[in-house]
Amino acid sequence: MTGAKRKKNSVVWRKINSFHCADIKQWCLRRLPILEWAPCYNLKENLIPDTVSGIMLAVQQVTQGLAFAILSSVHPVFGLYGSLFPAIIYAIFGMGRHVATGTFALTSLISANAVERLVPQASQNFTTYSNSGVLGLSDFEMQRIGVAAAVSFLGGIIQIAMFVLQLGSATFLLTEPVISAMTTGAATHVVTSQVKYLLGMKMPYISGPLGFFYIIAASFACYCANMEYTYGLDVVGHIPDGIPSPRAPPMNILSEVVTEAFGVALVGYVASLALAQGSAKKFKYSVDDNQEFLAHGLSNVIPSFFFCIPSAAAMGRTAGLYSTGSKTQVACLISCILVLIVIYAVGPLLYWLPMCVLASVIVVGLKGMLIQFRDLKKYWNVDKIDWGIWVSTYIFTICFAANVGLLFGVVCTIAVVIVRFPRAKTLSLKNMKELEYKVKTEVEGCESSQVEGMNTDFLMKEIDSKENLQQVKFISINNPLVFLNAKKFHADLMNTIQKDNANNQPPDDINKCEQNMLLNLTSNGTCNGETPQPYPNEKCSVILDCTGLTFFDYTGVSTLVQAYTDCKSQNVDFLLANCTASLKKAVQYCGHLESDKHIFFESVSAAIGAIHLNKNLSKCSDHSEV
Amino acid sequence: MTGAKRKKNSVVWRKINSFHCADIKQWCLRRLPILEWAPCYNLKENLIPDTVSGIMLAVQQVTQGLAFAILSSVHPVFGLYGSLFPAIIYAIFGMGRHVATGTFALTSLISANAVERLVPQASQNFTTYSNSGVLGLSDFEMQRIGVAAAVSFLGGIIQIAMFVLQLGSATFLLTEPVISAMTTGAATHVVTSQVKYLLGMKMPYISGPLGFFYIIAASFACYCANMEYTYGLDVVGHIPDGIPSPRAPPMNILSEVVTEAFGVALVGYVASLALAQGSAKKFKYSVDDNQEFLAHGLSNVIPSFFFCIPSAAAMGRTAGLYSTGSKTQVACLISCILVLIVIYAVGPLLYWLPMCVLASVIVVGLKGMLIQFRDLKKYWNVDKIDWGIWVSTYIFTICFAANVGLLFGVVCTIAVVIVRFPRAKTLSLKNMKELEYKVKTEVEGCESSQVEGMNTDFLMKEIDSKENLQQVKFISINNPLVFLNAKKFHADLMNTIQKDNANNQPPDDINKCEQNMLLNLTSNGTCNGETPQPYPNEKCSVILDCTGLTFFDYTGVSTLVQAYTDCKSQNVDFLLANCTASLKKAVQYCGHLESDKHIFFESVSAAIGAIHLNKNLSKCSDHSEV
Repeated sequence: MTGAKRKKNSVVWRKINSFHCADIKQWCLRRLPILEWAPCYNLKENLIPDTVSGIMLAVQQVTQGLAFAILSSVHPVFGLYGSLFPAIIYAIFGMGRHVATGTFALTSLISANAVERLVPQASQNFTTYSNSGVLGLSDFEMQRIGVAAAVSFLGGIIQIAMFVLQLGSATFLLTEPVISAMTTGAATHVVTSQVKYLLGMKMPYISGPLGFFYIIAASFACYCANMEYTYGLDVVGHIPDGIPSPRAPPMNILSEVVTEAFGVALVGYVASLALAQGSAKKFKYSVDDNQEFLAHGLSNVIPSFFFCIPSAAAMGRTAGLYSTGSKTQVACLISCILVLIVIYAVGPLLYWLPMCVLASVIVVGLKGMLIQFRDLKKYWNVDKIDWGIWVSTYIFTICFAANVGLLFGVVCTIAVVIVRFPRAKTLSLKNMKELEYKVKTEVEGCESSQVEGMNTDFLMKEIDSKENLQQVKFISINNPLVFLNAKKFHADLMNTIQKDNANNQPPDDINKCEQNMLLNLTSNGTCNGETPQPYPNEKCSVILDCTGLTFFDYTGVSTLVQAYTDCKSQNVDFLLANCTASLKKAVQYCGHLESDKHIFFESVSAAIGAIHLNKNLSKCSDHSEV
Repeated sequence: MTGAKRKKNSVVWRKINSFHCADIKQWCLRRLPILEWAPCYNLKENLIPDTVSGIMLAVQQVTQGLAFAILSSVHPVFGLYGSLFPAIIYAIFGMGRHVATGTFALTSLISANAVERLVPQASQNFTTYSNSGVLGLSDFEMQRIGVAAAVSFLGGIIQIAMFVLQLGSATFLLTEPVISAMTTGAATHVVTSQVKYLLGMKMPYISGPLGFFYIIAASFACYCANMEYTYGLDVVGHIPDGIPSPRAPPMNILSEVVTEAFGVALVGYVASLALAQGSAKKFKYSVDDNQEFLAHGLSNVIPSFFFCIPSAAAMGRTAGLYSTGSKTQVACLISCILVLIVIYAVGPLLYWLPMCVLASVIVVGLKGMLIQFRDLKKYWNVDKIDWGIWVSTYIFTICFAANVGLLFGVVCTIAVVIVRFPRAKTLSLKNMKELEYKVKTEVEGCESSQVEGMNTDFLMKEIDSKENLQQVKFISINNPLVFLNAKKFHADLMNTIQKDNANNQPPDDINKCEQNMLLNLTSNGTCNGETPQPYPNEKCSVILDCTGLTFFDYTGVSTLVQAYTDCKSQNVDFLLANCTASLKKAVQYCGHLESDKHIFFESVSAAIGAIHLNKNLSKCSDHSEV
């Protein structure tokens, strides 16, 4: 090997190496957003607001963790873990700056379905965790959290699979009305499930934000009154401290929780994405839909090994982060430290917290979702159809489940577009003033440039633009031409052409005239003495500007060819301007137009030039015949 | 009651009466197309071609009737009835002039599924017809036709239900590639089911049209050779003559044939509609998709009382009608008379017809569908995606069933449009030449008309169009603005505006400049000595022409409002021209724009006038400040 060669090789090698390194670094940055913002974290400006937000968030995380764990039919302590692990993982992988991941009412309710369905059997028939002496909790409690962890695990796996399939790009199908209706419907479900606790205890409905101190106060009041014994009031009970060593969720019941896992994966992701996008819109940064799939997937899979219930971003906590002025995910990490302190130190003090307080925490936590009912007025004023979609999606969510409602909403949205599309106008006729100018300038320009070296007899003739205008129609299509609007396009085009003919001729004589025209085409027969056309055989022309024809399918192209054939049979010249190469090829192939070269033109002006040239040529031959 | 009053009343009554009569007549004409064409049937011109076509059609109807009855796993005689009754009913209710309704390979194969599935049980467990001594046929044969008639009955009911629901208008979803792939796939199914007969008998594959005489000849040859006993060749066997009295299909098995009934209803309708539309296109008349649902529904329901297998229009027979020059449904009625003669007189002579001949009739009858493989080349050249849809629909039809393939094809077609739509260009920037003209003429026109009575200082100033052009951008949107393309619209709009800014400023300084602009907006700071803008504070303007915004939804409107807000934050004037009233209302409501009145303009020229006026006013105030 020569030195030069070796040098060259090493350069190539270095290039490949550096490319790889840059590539890997790029990939890491894209997949670990924390690496992007953490190194340039502005301690001075952001630490104080983030700390304040973190403290406030910790209060919400603890109370909602306990409440949503009970909603999820598992022991409250697991809710504390659920407020800790998902928040850490989302801070590493997530892109939303104000998204507080943790326990979430809607996913809790979905996993409660699985827990209530499986555990009565489980307690007799199968064990979810083989050795259940963790934390001093009963076998029954361990089996329940086993089911919830399995739902979380499988839901996370589904979300990661969706990340791998790059399904994040399909989220444009989830429109605001559908997400709003689905979350409102699911929140209604949760609230109705809590009414029994709220009413059974004769506790008034507590509205407004609940502070940590009020709760504390309720716990203290209960302790003083020793209400558990005196009045039989249900309290949280023993909360063990510490975190048990991780254990895999029971894999043998995964097949039985597939429905719930899909519900958790979809509903959790959709609700969280809406919050992340809202934050991104407000603070002008961007969120990658696919990366969010990965972040939420990992926030469900990894915590499922730590006895966590399914997680997602909650609207109430996110709103809290907004209002307390949080800047980054550092707020969430600070709240995690505080939750950890609660788990290790404060847990036992929560013994006397009454259940009904937690029920009210749930209801208050859902306030943000429930007031989405106000959106109805907005949709009604903006678009009645979106209002209809909201209402029907809400009804479906109430009657069936959140994921059924979501699916219905998406299908409904698509169906509405598909129904509206074939009814929409496809063509725009350029206005006369514009045309006049164009014809005046462009035809003149074309002629002098294109027809050089030809017989100058007709070039010298004065061009009467007005007369030409009546014979040439400029139509532009600015829609894709696909099966949805192909029929309408054909009808619109034929209407436009026929209106043109009608305007040129006295209305009553059109049919007669047309028949005559068709019958006597070869014998040069004149229709009627009254027709204003100086040359009855002179062809009317249509120029279709295809600049806006962004894409097409087979149905569209065959309709275009059909229109061309119909125009030909009505003695109308049909010219296409500004076609893309693929459209040109498709039309030629579909219509067997190899021989007809006078259809496609580079621009509208080239088409006008060609029409004018033809007209003058035919006039000349007419004159010579005479 | 006074005389006048009575007279008035009687006039009203007569009016109601006459209205009702006209209405009923209109309805009858629309629902019974035969009343439209039969009274003006041109005996002289059409009777001879129709009779010739009718004779040729009768040959096909008889042979295909026998063949498709065997394909349908029922006794061949029922195929003869299936060639008779549906053809009569379609002639009355159908609109296709060259559509020969009768037995059909694809629907026969579908109903064979039901027959083979139910009758082995049926022979022991339940009887379909209570008294089965009809025509001297065995109990087993009667049970089999019972199942086929039940499929036909329920399929027809489904088609009539679709007529009532006016689902005919949804047939635009069935694109040509999907129908072609589905019928080809189903035909492949049928052919493979017949291979055993063809090969088992060591008969060569018979291609080309089969004439009546050739068949007759095969029957005669078999009779001479007495092949049934000599070689064990399977022949048709005893065909009873006459038509039994009608009997209702067994209603107790309807629930068990729902799948097949849906298959028959959809596949039969789709294949028949494609033929009717082809005939309508060729001979320039129109076919009502809904009326066809009614016609085929009745052609399935009524004949099911006469022991008929499910019916539809077959491609082979329709092609036969084309080639023999048939003009109207009279050809079908004439063929019905001939089929009736066969049933009453010729039936017993068909005893010796070998089964393998019928198998070859089936295969030959499907030739028209199988050569649709040639379409693949066409789709490949016109649109690769449609080619992909064809192939995948074909594979689905082969692997599952015709209706599954059809459903897959429709879903696939919709999904493709939904995926392509968000990628298509949404905006068109009008070209400069055009703009220049517009600005020159329209602004001048506007000024002189609109600004009368104001300070003439700035009116007298020369308008430098070129300079103005750099500051005003005309953009037209010619798509519906819905959730599918809202994101792309926003990105396109922002790109266009930023490109504008980039063109005006040296590229390296944009960010710096913009930051300066944002920071020093109030302090009248100049960006850089090199910027060509004479007035740095002078606003850039965008006029969005909404003429082509045909419809919108909530997502679209909120994106439009978002674009307006973004433009405002970038110090860009955003004007909307030619908005519809509903769009105006929606944008106002969605963006809380009650106060901002300077957004909506009647026309582009009005918007230009307003911009110019503002500019001059601000210049004036600048001058006075200086």
